[in-house]
Amino acid sequence: MRILGIDPGFATIGFGLIEAEKAAVHMVTYGTITTPAGLPLSRRLYQIGTDMENLIGQLKPDVISIEELFFNTNITTGIAVAHGRGVILYAAEKCGIPLHEYTPSQVKMAVTGYGKAEKRQVMEMTRRLLKLGAVPRPDDAADALGLALCHARSFTSRLPQTGTVKETI
Amino acid sequence: MRILGIDPGFATIGFGLIEAEKAAVHMVTYGTITTPAGLPLSRRLYQIGTDMENLIGQLKPDVISIEELFFNTNITTGIAVAHGRGVILYAAEKCGIPLHEYTPSQVKMAVTGYGKAEKRQVMEMTRRLLKLGAVPRPDDAADALGLALCHARSFTSRLPQTGTVKETI
Repeated sequence: MRILGIDPGFATIGFGLIEAEKAAVHMVTYGTITTPAGLPLSRRLYQIGTDMENLIGQLKPDVISIEELFFNTNITTGIAVAHGRGVILYAAEKCGIPLHEYTPSQVKMAVTGYGKAEKRQVMEMTRRLLKLGAVPRPDDAADALGLALCHARSFTSRLPQTGTVKETI
Repeated sequence: MRILGIDPGFATIGFGLIEAEKAAVHMVTYGTITTPAGLPLSRRLYQIGTDMENLIGQLKPDVISIEELFFNTNITTGIAVAHGRGVILYAAEKCGIPLHEYTPSQVKMAVTGYGKAEKRQVMEMTRRLLKLGAVPRPDDAADALGLALCHARSFTSRLPQTGTVKETI
């Protein structure tokens, strides 16, 4: 299963694609979509939409894992990020890709086993789980890989782990 | 000039189209785009995007006048509205329609001459200026017509009102 993690944003959107089969995961690619600060709001949103569609078309994910949005810091930045996230969700739906949303603490729990882990700890565990030589840069891309891992772990933990275990619900 | 006013939203988006020529304005049509509460977030955003594109294609506005977003009430609702507004701006840009953004107090000032006017007063003045028999329903559509009027007044006030008045800046 190809899982595309997305760290939503407006100026910078992180993405990270992993392949997950049972307990095995590996990184395929990661990076960012960026929009130039000088352009009007609507132009930047249009670019986010078309870039997301192109990215989905190239990477062909089976599912997208995206961070839920909370406003706990700068509300003006938060509005811009929510605008961008709306366009990202629109693009995913347009391409027919199933979406799953995770909170930051769900990602921390899935990747490190501790829901209040430090950001650096999550990045280091993301690096280890994906057997990478260094923590991916920039942070937005590392966060996106963490979101992909979070879905991989949530997904595989719901499957029977051996032939003798069945889901009972 | 055909001005499409948009009251941004998620569950309900108001729209109102007016024709403005110098000081003369008249209402062409108004209404709402709505998305069903039972659908997933991304599906509703996709519907907003396609409905907006269809609306712009049908109404052929020269310009769109849309409300700026402030979060002064419910932050959860605010995030959803910001998602929807992002997709509306994306759709306007995709269709190549110029956008102007106005704050609620700019709309109040343009329509009633008083930036702290009551909502009902704005609606009543919108009705009078457009020579309508009753205040348009629902409120979202009336607000959208107010936004269109706001742009019409901002636009015409920047033009010379007689042959003897010129812009000096």
